[in-house]
Amino acid sequence: MATMATPKHKPPSKHTIDALIRIVGTEHAISDASAMAPYLVEWRDRYRGKAALVLKPGDTGEVSSILKIANETRTAIVPQGGNTGLVGGQIPFESGHEVVVSLERLNRVRDIDLASNTMTVEAGLTLAQVKQVAASAGRLFPLSLASEGSAQIGGVLATNAGGMAVIAYGGARELALGIEVVLADGRVWDGLKCLRKDNSGYDLKDLIIGSEGTLGIITAAVLRLFPKIAERVTCMTGLKALDTAPDFFARALERAGPALTAFEIMPRIGIEFVLRHGSQVRDPFPDPHQWYALFELSSPREGSELAQLAETLLKQGLEAGEIADAVVASSLSQAEALWRLRELIGEVQKEEGGSIKHDVAVPVARIPEFIARADQLVELMIPGARPVPFGHFGDGNIHYNVSQPAGMERTVFLANWEALNAAVHEIVLDLDGSISAEHGIGRLKRDLLPHAKQPLEIELMRKIKAAFDSNAILNPGKLLR
Amino acid sequence: MATMATPKHKPPSKHTIDALIRIVGTEHAISDASAMAPYLVEWRDRYRGKAALVLKPGDTGEVSSILKIANETRTAIVPQGGNTGLVGGQIPFESGHEVVVSLERLNRVRDIDLASNTMTVEAGLTLAQVKQVAASAGRLFPLSLASEGSAQIGGVLATNAGGMAVIAYGGARELALGIEVVLADGRVWDGLKCLRKDNSGYDLKDLIIGSEGTLGIITAAVLRLFPKIAERVTCMTGLKALDTAPDFFARALERAGPALTAFEIMPRIGIEFVLRHGSQVRDPFPDPHQWYALFELSSPREGSELAQLAETLLKQGLEAGEIADAVVASSLSQAEALWRLRELIGEVQKEEGGSIKHDVAVPVARIPEFIARADQLVELMIPGARPVPFGHFGDGNIHYNVSQPAGMERTVFLANWEALNAAVHEIVLDLDGSISAEHGIGRLKRDLLPHAKQPLEIELMRKIKAAFDSNAILNPGKLLR
Repeated sequence: MATMATPKHKPPSKHTIDALIRIVGTEHAISDASAMAPYLVEWRDRYRGKAALVLKPGDTGEVSSILKIANETRTAIVPQGGNTGLVGGQIPFESGHEVVVSLERLNRVRDIDLASNTMTVEAGLTLAQVKQVAASAGRLFPLSLASEGSAQIGGVLATNAGGMAVIAYGGARELALGIEVVLADGRVWDGLKCLRKDNSGYDLKDLIIGSEGTLGIITAAVLRLFPKIAERVTCMTGLKALDTAPDFFARALERAGPALTAFEIMPRIGIEFVLRHGSQVRDPFPDPHQWYALFELSSPREGSELAQLAETLLKQGLEAGEIADAVVASSLSQAEALWRLRELIGEVQKEEGGSIKHDVAVPVARIPEFIARADQLVELMIPGARPVPFGHFGDGNIHYNVSQPAGMERTVFLANWEALNAAVHEIVLDLDGSISAEHGIGRLKRDLLPHAKQPLEIELMRKIKAAFDSNAILNPGKLLR
Repeated sequence: MATMATPKHKPPSKHTIDALIRIVGTEHAISDASAMAPYLVEWRDRYRGKAALVLKPGDTGEVSSILKIANETRTAIVPQGGNTGLVGGQIPFESGHEVVVSLERLNRVRDIDLASNTMTVEAGLTLAQVKQVAASAGRLFPLSLASEGSAQIGGVLATNAGGMAVIAYGGARELALGIEVVLADGRVWDGLKCLRKDNSGYDLKDLIIGSEGTLGIITAAVLRLFPKIAERVTCMTGLKALDTAPDFFARALERAGPALTAFEIMPRIGIEFVLRHGSQVRDPFPDPHQWYALFELSSPREGSELAQLAETLLKQGLEAGEIADAVVASSLSQAEALWRLRELIGEVQKEEGGSIKHDVAVPVARIPEFIARADQLVELMIPGARPVPFGHFGDGNIHYNVSQPAGMERTVFLANWEALNAAVHEIVLDLDGSISAEHGIGRLKRDLLPHAKQPLEIELMRKIKAAFDSNAILNPGKLLR
């Protein structure tokens, strides 16, 4: 996969390296190759980069000092959070000329305001820590990712991460009211507003969120907090057919409104993989179904009418011929068991050999058409390959993963990656979709972007990049060529 | 108020004017001064501009052709929707060299997708029409403004309008999934995505939304639709004191969560003004209270537990000593009567003479402190002046309006406008607030912006402006000098 041209940056001089190390102190700078290794490898081993140095600044001022020198010396900087990204945005290229800046030591909770329902946190806290701090204060921070134990909030914002609860709460961008950012030249933009409404100028916050470290380094953020969940009902249904899922979903949303806090789909083959390779799992239904929907209703109040609502939704789905069977979790452990079926799909897939992945979105109504067309294409291109499309149905976000045909040589199958991506993305774009729903562009999809966007969009993005980072030192070669 | 320097643009030549008229046809171009008048006057008569021409293009292609010529000839363009803006952004300056482009004829509903809960509409539909089309399809478009009968959706998005329901649904920016924009040089960016998740590049949509026509002209948008409301409970409370409002609000939000769809506050003097000057109004309480909160609970389901929830919230508020009295509307007409008390405040204020206005936001927890400090300041600066602070408490958005002392000469009072604004805004900024919560910057607050923002922010905004509109033809002199 690592065939992409390395951007040309000169190696930092000895003098520059010494100056950078002095900022953080020798105990927080790593230049030894083996000690740097964990910062240079993508966790699925898709990318292995090199770096001149890894720096671990202790506060925003140190990040500022680093960028000031980097900008003056044209040293390329790769900002890194928890190194859980899925598109290689956080990994330096192979030149060894770049400097990785890890935000891990910026890990303070600066403020929590329960009346305003906001908390101000630094970039290096993990998402799980942020959620834990919110929970301890009796609040919910709703963003939920498989990687939340390692993913840091700075990286979550830099990549506008999504996850399970976007349907009700929005993604990272909608959950941040303000950010503190160190710009390419080291100046600090204090955009830590705690305001729900602020129409005083261009929306710089949302421009920087999701820019994958190419416009600035997010060092802190004001996050929105929500009432904690007091009651939750988790349901899993066997669908009659995928085609009926949009109608079932639309009716659920119509009745449940904001109480519908998750709506995921899974194919039979995904459940089979989980049953085959997962531990502590069992099929909740006596008979197999081609497709399953897992949905969740939540309320900040105990004794609300969620159980009755779930019953109504399931009854209507059965009557309308949309669902074939359903289970409602009657305990927290049952709910967790249902969620486990969904969450393990991505993980167990590797037990079935190579998998070619797509993180795409299409309008909800067009999901069945997308999957039907993509499946047809896969069978045509790689007969016997096994599509395992699953994910966040309510957001139109499907992880269209394709497992290799049983018995095929893994590398032979994976040689189809780029060709299959191109063909699947063509369908996505034909359906007015996105080739990156939630994982971002990074390095993996950088050269696909010009095919997926209008030339005008790329031009505007380039102009913005030049306006923010005229020396192109911030994560060069990621997102944009 | 109209003391601001007019930006220097040359008048369009006869040749340019003829070319522009040819694009839309003579029947859709106005050059007669009296026929142009309605497009040149701000509705509260705060600004009276002049124009070389008013154009009413019929589709996106015509808008594109207009901007192409304008960009080539350096002709300044003022985009205009329903002309309901409150900061003069939609009104040309006094030079008479600018061309107003009214979007009123772009009024088609292009698409409505119930399964995906989106609708695609053109800029010239009024907000009321958009809401009506959504309602006819069994859906809710939740944005609610006093001016919704005239305000057009293009202008609503260009100014990122807020209103009553932001607390639950977000403002214009959060309610638009995609936009179609004509850029300064006439090229059309088709950003009409219907996706809830799209992480493929910089967030151009949110940059253009709220840019007040200075980065491009929005010609169409994809809007999010929500389940229609089946049940609504409206409550008005007399508060014990303003200081207890944040606690009462926080508890209401904690229990109600997304069911809390409005939370407004009003001072006694506002209610008195309404009772004195409004028609069909009465005080719902036997005794007067210094402050009132009006809140609303909504559900997409009939027979939900909202009535019981309201009762619990009021009981807890009484027990905690936060509220002194409360009424719950027992019919739609009673609910409307309560809302009328809130909605008339802005309107009836003019019966009490001049009013100096502020549209500000501070963190919710700091609203009482803000109002106390501002009131003190007003009494110091203009003894006898009567503050009437009301508005969207749940968003931290207070319309801090100040009515003149009884008997004072109106113009003498209004001569304090800029000095009072400056002093009130200083308190707002000290509390980490915004000098424009929802009305925008436009012309009214343009020269205040450099005091309210960091120089870095202004610099980044200027760079973005230059990147999008290098000839500075789009609404020049608005938002940025």
